[in-house]
Amino acid sequence: MPSVEDTLLEQFLATRRYSLQICRPLEVEDYNLQAADFASPPKWHLAHTSWFFETFLLKPFLPDYIAINDLYETLFNSYYNGVGKPFQRASRGLLSRPTLDEVLAYRAHIDEGIRTLLRSQAHSERDAIVERVVLGIEHERQHQELFFTDIKYSLSANPLAPSYSQRNTKGSSSETPAALAFVPFEGGLTETGNEGSGFSFDNELPRHRNWVEPFNLANRLVTNAEYQAFIDDGGYERPELWLADGWTTVTESDWSGPLYWHNTKDGPMEFTLHGLIERQDSAPVCHISGYEAEAYARWCDARLPTEHEWELAASACSLPGSGIAISSPHPESAPSETKGVLQLYDSCWQWTRSAYTPYPGFKISPGAIGEYNGKFMSNQWVLRGGSCVSIPAQLRPSYRNFFYPPDRWQFSGIRLAR
Amino acid sequence: MPSVEDTLLEQFLATRRYSLQICRPLEVEDYNLQAADFASPPKWHLAHTSWFFETFLLKPFLPDYIAINDLYETLFNSYYNGVGKPFQRASRGLLSRPTLDEVLAYRAHIDEGIRTLLRSQAHSERDAIVERVVLGIEHERQHQELFFTDIKYSLSANPLAPSYSQRNTKGSSSETPAALAFVPFEGGLTETGNEGSGFSFDNELPRHRNWVEPFNLANRLVTNAEYQAFIDDGGYERPELWLADGWTTVTESDWSGPLYWHNTKDGPMEFTLHGLIERQDSAPVCHISGYEAEAYARWCDARLPTEHEWELAASACSLPGSGIAISSPHPESAPSETKGVLQLYDSCWQWTRSAYTPYPGFKISPGAIGEYNGKFMSNQWVLRGGSCVSIPAQLRPSYRNFFYPPDRWQFSGIRLAR
Amino acid sequence: MPSVEDTLLEQFLATRRYSLQICRPLEVEDYNLQAADFASPPKWHLAHTSWFFETFLLKPFLPDYIAINDLYETLFNSYYNGVGKPFQRASRGLLSRPTLDEVLAYRAHIDEGIRTLLRSQAHSERDAIVERVVLGIEHERQHQELFFTDIKYSLSANPLAPSYSQRNTKGSSSETPAALAFVPFEGGLTETGNEGSGFSFDNELPRHRNWVEPFNLANRLVTNAEYQAFIDDGGYERPELWLADGWTTVTESDWSGPLYWHNTKDGPMEFTLHGLIERQDSAPVCHISGYEAEAYARWCDARLPTEHEWELAASACSLPGSGIAISSPHPESAPSETKGVLQLYDSCWQWTRSAYTPYPGFKISPGAIGEYNGKFMSNQWVLRGGSCVSIPAQLRPSYRNFFYPPDRWQFSGIRLAR
Amino acid sequence: MPSVEDTLLEQFLATRRYSLQICRPLEVEDYNLQAADFASPPKWHLAHTSWFFETFLLKPFLPDYIAINDLYETLFNSYYNGVGKPFQRASRGLLSRPTLDEVLAYRAHIDEGIRTLLRSQAHSERDAIVERVVLGIEHERQHQELFFTDIKYSLSANPLAPSYSQRNTKGSSSETPAALAFVPFEGGLTETGNEGSGFSFDNELPRHRNWVEPFNLANRLVTNAEYQAFIDDGGYERPELWLADGWTTVTESDWSGPLYWHNTKDGPMEFTLHGLIERQDSAPVCHISGYEAEAYARWCDARLPTEHEWELAASACSLPGSGIAISSPHPESAPSETKGVLQLYDSCWQWTRSAYTPYPGFKISPGAIGEYNGKFMSNQWVLRGGSCVSIPAQLRPSYRNFFYPPDRWQFSGIRLAR
Repeated sequence: MPSVEDTLLEQFLATRRYSLQICRPLEVEDYNLQAADFASPPKWHLAHTSWFFETFLLKPFLPDYIAINDLYETLFNSYYNGVGKPFQRASRGLLSRPTLDEVLAYRAHIDEGIRTLLRSQAHSERDAIVERVVLGIEHERQHQELFFTDIKYSLSANPLAPSYSQRNTKGSSSETPAALAFVPFEGGLTETGNEGSGFSFDNELPRHRNWVEPFNLANRLVTNAEYQAFIDDGGYERPELWLADGWTTVTESDWSGPLYWHNTKDGPMEFTLHGLIERQDSAPVCHISGYEAEAYARWCDARLPTEHEWELAASACSLPGSGIAISSPHPESAPSETKGVLQLYDSCWQWTRSAYTPYPGFKISPGAIGEYNGKFMSNQWVLRGGSCVSIPAQLRPSYRNFFYPPDRWQFSGIRLAR
Repeated sequence: MPSVEDTLLEQFLATRRYSLQICRPLEVEDYNLQAADFASPPKWHLAHTSWFFETFLLKPFLPDYIAINDLYETLFNSYYNGVGKPFQRASRGLLSRPTLDEVLAYRAHIDEGIRTLLRSQAHSERDAIVERVVLGIEHERQHQELFFTDIKYSLSANPLAPSYSQRNTKGSSSETPAALAFVPFEGGLTETGNEGSGFSFDNELPRHRNWVEPFNLANRLVTNAEYQAFIDDGGYERPELWLADGWTTVTESDWSGPLYWHNTKDGPMEFTLHGLIERQDSAPVCHISGYEAEAYARWCDARLPTEHEWELAASACSLPGSGIAISSPHPESAPSETKGVLQLYDSCWQWTRSAYTPYPGFKISPGAIGEYNGKFMSNQWVLRGGSCVSIPAQLRPSYRNFFYPPDRWQFSGIRLAR
Repeated sequence: MPSVEDTLLEQFLATRRYSLQICRPLEVEDYNLQAADFASPPKWHLAHTSWFFETFLLKPFLPDYIAINDLYETLFNSYYNGVGKPFQRASRGLLSRPTLDEVLAYRAHIDEGIRTLLRSQAHSERDAIVERVVLGIEHERQHQELFFTDIKYSLSANPLAPSYSQRNTKGSSSETPAALAFVPFEGGLTETGNEGSGFSFDNELPRHRNWVEPFNLANRLVTNAEYQAFIDDGGYERPELWLADGWTTVTESDWSGPLYWHNTKDGPMEFTLHGLIERQDSAPVCHISGYEAEAYARWCDARLPTEHEWELAASACSLPGSGIAISSPHPESAPSETKGVLQLYDSCWQWTRSAYTPYPGFKISPGAIGEYNGKFMSNQWVLRGGSCVSIPAQLRPSYRNFFYPPDRWQFSGIRLAR
Repeated sequence: MPSVEDTLLEQFLATRRYSLQICRPLEVEDYNLQAADFASPPKWHLAHTSWFFETFLLKPFLPDYIAINDLYETLFNSYYNGVGKPFQRASRGLLSRPTLDEVLAYRAHIDEGIRTLLRSQAHSERDAIVERVVLGIEHERQHQELFFTDIKYSLSANPLAPSYSQRNTKGSSSETPAALAFVPFEGGLTETGNEGSGFSFDNELPRHRNWVEPFNLANRLVTNAEYQAFIDDGGYERPELWLADGWTTVTESDWSGPLYWHNTKDGPMEFTLHGLIERQDSAPVCHISGYEAEAYARWCDARLPTEHEWELAASACSLPGSGIAISSPHPESAPSETKGVLQLYDSCWQWTRSAYTPYPGFKISPGAIGEYNGKFMSNQWVLRGGSCVSIPAQLRPSYRNFFYPPDRWQFSGIRLAR
């Protein structure tokens, strides 16, 4: 029977390999691409995920560990002030050096270090190490998702509309999705937050009681065609449908539709990781800000769910799979099933109307690692579920994703509640 | 026995008179002063509160009402898109015309109109009218508070540090305030939101159930001396104490203390509506952003209360008075009493850790008047209680005030929870 | 026969009185108005011109001079770094205090000081004092012109379009102006710069030799009707007509015509110091940036003159009058005369294609007073002549006015050359 | 004897090859690097210079020319509005596609096209073609210089301080340079502008008369040690030394020395294309803005020359060589010679005090090619000479370089005049 460490090492290596695998379709020139502050370059993701293992495991726990380059501590720090002043986020695309080859060597160096660390015997900090390797794996999976969202954004800035990969054209997407329906839930005095002994992020804890009134949750996500009807009804020109800050964003950013929609002379198109493709009526509307989701819901006399409602509903449904790879970097139409709540984890993240705040009794871990989640608990909204570019193995009903309400470059969509 | 309308008219006129009374210490030149987008000039407050009665009462309900100037509809609209495109907020200080005398004539015209409206017999829209006059009075009281916060900010931009009024020097402020203590509350399945038949704003409704864990609430507000200890301990230089967005604000805005603190060669001073005065150790720290409140709480191993906790505690305490005038435009030290929760309504608003979101089942009123509160329910935090410049008659346990977490020009302070 | 000092004192007092006289049509509320960084409030002009006499005459030369308020040294300093750090320009409109009455008292205090200084006997610094009083008078006249340009801009920000004064409706403006013609000049080795012993600013010196090729200068300014033809021909939509920086300004500022033009449902209107009036075809186009002037000239196959050409031509024409008051704050149409060069000084400043740089041998005076002109000699263009709001007594052929090429709030127009 | 076309083709091909040769030290990742709006990526320079030949020669003159990709017309247009709306300058670094290989193929395609065009017989537009090929070669040489200035800037943004190439350590730089001396020139009625039949840019024409007073010009450029003395004397803290706009730039940009100077714990260093190296006292100060040059000159009681003075002096000195390659991408110390005016072309461009304006009688060519120079004639200053990264073959006494006075990323230094 393999030891905990062996199993973990295997998981670790599989995760590390997958990060390289998803980069394979890129050209060398793409690795540095950063079209906005928030869209980190692929090379930076490869380096930063390594930095995480180096900073929180190799430097504190591996005796005689020698860093490849002391400046990497600064260059590949994302936002951990406890580790020093990070290199400015908006300039990550300016790091042509270290080159890709040097970054790959850095990754190999880190992999070797973790291998050594996990194989060393009778280590007194064994539990801490295991816990942090698990966290590092989960962290890298989050960056695998960000890899997709960021490179999509960065490629979209190029008028050549480059495609990341070819589309698999079989696709169940041509089917007619289930009609929109609302599934009733009873509510009551419930519990929210991660349960059991599996991994969870600190922001999912502690599990705590909550009073939830009865509610109804949509059986599937809002589709492109449904969202088009909102636009056709003047959705982007009617301030009364919007939150005040949302309306300011609409007018200042001159929004008239979702992020990647293009109405060309060839008809309605959408920029995707397969390049510019025809927009599909039945596919879920994606790359929607929280403000747009909220306005859409108001327009059709519904509302967004709270995160407690969402979690309560999801806990009663089937769970996400355990795969460590994505199926397709573009969301598919809902199946035609008419039972249950569909598209919880595999299409688009679902904006909730809950602000991202600490759960009652939430504690921040000591040290720089405590900066992981807690310090972001203001001005953001919680999204729940997962998307077509999430790693299924890291999703669960209690997972809290969070972004600012104007953000649109994530694969985010709309699930209605009433 | 006076009719409802007579009583209401009396209230209306008293409120209108008080708006003029608080302006009396000003010079004509001060009436146009606007030192920031958010700090409206006194003259604009006088005109806008009149516009509210004109727009929502006289124009719809008073037959043959004739407006003094059609452009006022635009000039003195604050943010009601349903009434048309408002004059830009940042330029209110540029309206040297209409002159003060013209605005006073506008006020008299509106007063006359409301008098006529309330005295007209057997009006079929009687209930709607009464409801809106009440709302207009409450609205004007909110602007009376804003008058103080805004003129304080605008005067503070002048190196001459002009004083709005003389300080009443008797002051109980020299006393030693109560020692900081935490009052325990049991929590459980409670109700939040306005109760009973009295007036409340739409955002206080509907009253709804909530699960609250046991908690402790500080018996008084944090003092200047206590806050100084935070600064002395490097509070403004340690990112680990701050929310990420808070730390960005601190560094970009170069904050090193509360808004109006000045450390001069004559010692620690504070700009107030009485000009620059000596800072008092025992007085509550005031003009604190939500970020600062949150960082301070973390520093002393406490936290900010949620709005539900605050309301639960306040419901068990004595209520604010019914006065329609303020006592002093500067917060006093807490009394030396050692029982109960002090300084709930009369010193500084208290930041909570609750984001300003709709209560379950919240409904927005139809028409432009529905823009009153609902559209602001994103990115802001709830403050509870009241301040020395609030009109006591409009405060109550369920009152929800809300500002952006970096805002500091309100009379906002810190009450700790655990 | 009156002494030099008596004559000077009389001139001084007349100038001081005229500053007050031009303010008389204002409401108290207008005195603080500042609609842009560059448009100082009337009260500030009144105070700053007094500050100039206080700083450069009373403080250094009048024994026992006592300032009214030490902070005025900072508050009313415009840009003299040698005197200390000036109060920020953009915030002058926030100085509701000192009040108008206090500023008038400040002016009276300064007047009294200068009276004393000029009457004191046998002063050893007599020449320096006389020279500086003359400079102070010329300085105040410049601010009288700025008073008109600034209050026009600030009033224009008010949707009520307030008028500063009533228009004198007789006006020769209804006449047909002279047809556009070009007057030939021979050029050759000429001299540029002030000549003779009269007052001039430092930037007009030293007089120096220059080679000028033969040129032709337009007999009058470009009219509104002529400029409208440029607009009608797509002038604001054709980048090939513009300097690159000009085109950037047009697109970023969304210009489609001169600053104060409004095309209303009542026809073509123009905001003036008489409020919104009908635009007159024959009047000179005014409130034109250097970029617009240059583009217009290119469009009609002409060019702007150089400052040397302009000065050479003006030296051969009749000089401006010696009045110390303006006639009308709005430029009139050219007379129908067909001889000579018209509208040199009394309509609109005329943009030249000369960058504002030092004359060969130019010297800056020592001390703060040397900051008067020299430090502005970069990035600006020279304008020559004078406008309807200039004080005639301070104009002359060698006078160099200067503004940034995008500036439009001065009374600036177009004279063509070839 | 080779035909004009054969000689031109050879020149063309040599120029094209040199563009590739200077890129050879780069990593693939460097080709897309753009650390500021103004610093175009190497790959973009390679593509844009090809675009120039395609747009102005192949498309109009080569029958049946087929473009590789129609979108390149937009992507690689720099600023020619006559050709259509260019891709935004600040985003050139986002064009990861076309890849380097694709751009090299584009270059080969263009080379082949020009070869065909020049070899086609009896072409009726022969003269126009020859003229434009010459312009295209000169244009590409300008971009070869920009390649060096831009990649230096972009590499400097990387904390790793990458070096473009190894330094050749022999260097005559250790010698003692000539003492600073002023060479007298007589002036008088002179001529400025290109003379003779050789190539020149349109902005050097027409040659025209000018009156120049006697002047003295420094025999060499200001050194690092001399500039350090200016800093040590408070040069960056004394507003009286600066033009007003210069002082604004100093304070807003927080300048305290030349662009690439670093004072490290290992002493005074300088970032160069050889990485971070020790700063050499005797080397000319480089990467200086026009404002700094002007302030330095004022500080040492001198001034900057006018462009007429510079050209007059240079016309009497030895001319630059005819090489088409640079010697070293870092300026060397002046030789110890004591005769004549040194460092005219081979060290640093020299700021003049002349604004960049059209010469009398200047004409812009019709069509998009007329946008080459004329439209930039505002707000910039003229620099004269050449630098260590200029292609010697394209320098001459009449060459006018121009940049905005705050620009520092060019190899620009200081030559004093009196």
